[in-house]
Amino acid sequence: MRKFEGYISSASNPRAKEWAKLLERKYRDREGKFLLEGIHLVKEALNAEWPLEIVAFDEGSGVLDAFEEYLDGDRKDGPSWIPVSPEVIMKCSETGTPQPIFAVALKRPPTKESLFAGELGGIVAVLDGVQDPGNAGTLVRSAAASGATAVVLGKGTVDLYNPKTIRSTMGALFHVPVLEADLSLLLPEARAQGVAVVGTSLQAAQSCYDYDFRRGNIWLVFGNEGSGVSAEVTALVNANVIIPMSGRSESLNVAMAATVLLFEAQRQRRMP
Amino acid sequence: MRKFEGYISSASNPRAKEWAKLLERKYRDREGKFLLEGIHLVKEALNAEWPLEIVAFDEGSGVLDAFEEYLDGDRKDGPSWIPVSPEVIMKCSETGTPQPIFAVALKRPPTKESLFAGELGGIVAVLDGVQDPGNAGTLVRSAAASGATAVVLGKGTVDLYNPKTIRSTMGALFHVPVLEADLSLLLPEARAQGVAVVGTSLQAAQSCYDYDFRRGNIWLVFGNEGSGVSAEVTALVNANVIIPMSGRSESLNVAMAATVLLFEAQRQRRMP
Repeated sequence: MRKFEGYISSASNPRAKEWAKLLERKYRDREGKFLLEGIHLVKEALNAEWPLEIVAFDEGSGVLDAFEEYLDGDRKDGPSWIPVSPEVIMKCSETGTPQPIFAVALKRPPTKESLFAGELGGIVAVLDGVQDPGNAGTLVRSAAASGATAVVLGKGTVDLYNPKTIRSTMGALFHVPVLEADLSLLLPEARAQGVAVVGTSLQAAQSCYDYDFRRGNIWLVFGNEGSGVSAEVTALVNANVIIPMSGRSESLNVAMAATVLLFEAQRQRRMP
Repeated sequence: MRKFEGYISSASNPRAKEWAKLLERKYRDREGKFLLEGIHLVKEALNAEWPLEIVAFDEGSGVLDAFEEYLDGDRKDGPSWIPVSPEVIMKCSETGTPQPIFAVALKRPPTKESLFAGELGGIVAVLDGVQDPGNAGTLVRSAAASGATAVVLGKGTVDLYNPKTIRSTMGALFHVPVLEADLSLLLPEARAQGVAVVGTSLQAAQSCYDYDFRRGNIWLVFGNEGSGVSAEVTALVNANVIIPMSGRSESLNVAMAATVLLFEAQRQRRMP
């Protein structure tokens, strides 16, 4: 049986206070860490061998029964497992009725260089000011499912690492590298490295079905829910594509449109 | 200036009580009517010339300022506009803070025959037990945006006409005909009429990119979030298709998968 570190009962314990600070973006940004709440996400992270600093759990809840396979033996390289009180769990959650387990995870961004290179190239999803946590989470999920190489979060985009967005990724963020960046600096650099930057602005756009996604590194940029891709970023793209619609309806929301475009790009790349 | 019907102040007024009953599915089913809440949906319905029985509004709120263009002149064929008290508005809403306007709309299902026929054929989205209101609403939105001919709601599917689902369609339900039906009766009939019924079950499925969507009437069936397309319906399909995934991630949810498939079908049909 695994030995655990000492029990933390008080929500004012210094470690508990450090963890709870990660509910705020400025601490997540500064520490390069974020919280994972609940059985599903903690399991997904463990399965993906994602770097976790600690796993904190309410032992009395019996939640560890769901983690037996991860606690067998003596994995020296794994996270510290720390029994805590329900008060500590509550302090480290935004929800009123938290699950009795959470983890502190480390951000693991890819290097810019790894995004530019890639022998076969790849599709990268770039978010420019997407504001809704559900949309951002869905976008990361679609990127992972479609086989995108990476996701880039531009400044002004909702924080992927807030608990609500993390939840809506359903764990997909463990399966696709995510980089936070200033697009006004990164995109020119990417283009200099041969990346084709493709926007989804309506101006001067061609049908996504006529655009050739088959070769090279292609970065697809998705914009804000209300105002679309920013003027600054639109000035940096090589081309713009649109999804032809029937015209009888409101346009798709950004997450749905991104799903169609990411899968269309991969469809073309699969063609013989 | 338009003359309005008499003001209704009491939430126990018989008409107000009739309207409020439409918050319950059994009354919606029985009466063939449903509620539209808020400025956006009421406007969308008016723009689409959707049959509305009444529009009720809180005159004191000033909400009619947003509807000036619909109130000019003397449109005899339009709905009755009825000033009501905030109490009546509250009684006819599920939300704690309703917008000061709602409408009672009539369901307007297409005939089965119109779905089978169609000179050029078309794509129909069929929902078999989809349970989440957000997923069902998104699916209707994708169907409308992709240019689907119609949507069929099988028994056991969430009620499209509950206020939450209506909201998540963003008004798309005014742009694509929706039929409620018993799939165990309707699908055999459709097949007898030459419709190709295509499931999204994982058994014996082929890639959606290899399936030929280009001609004829094709009905795409989407299943329950947990259990997928029912065994009963799977036994009635001509073929099953899947979206090839990268395999690194959880599958897409049903609304996202449906969006990809509906747009892929239309992409093929657009090809020369």
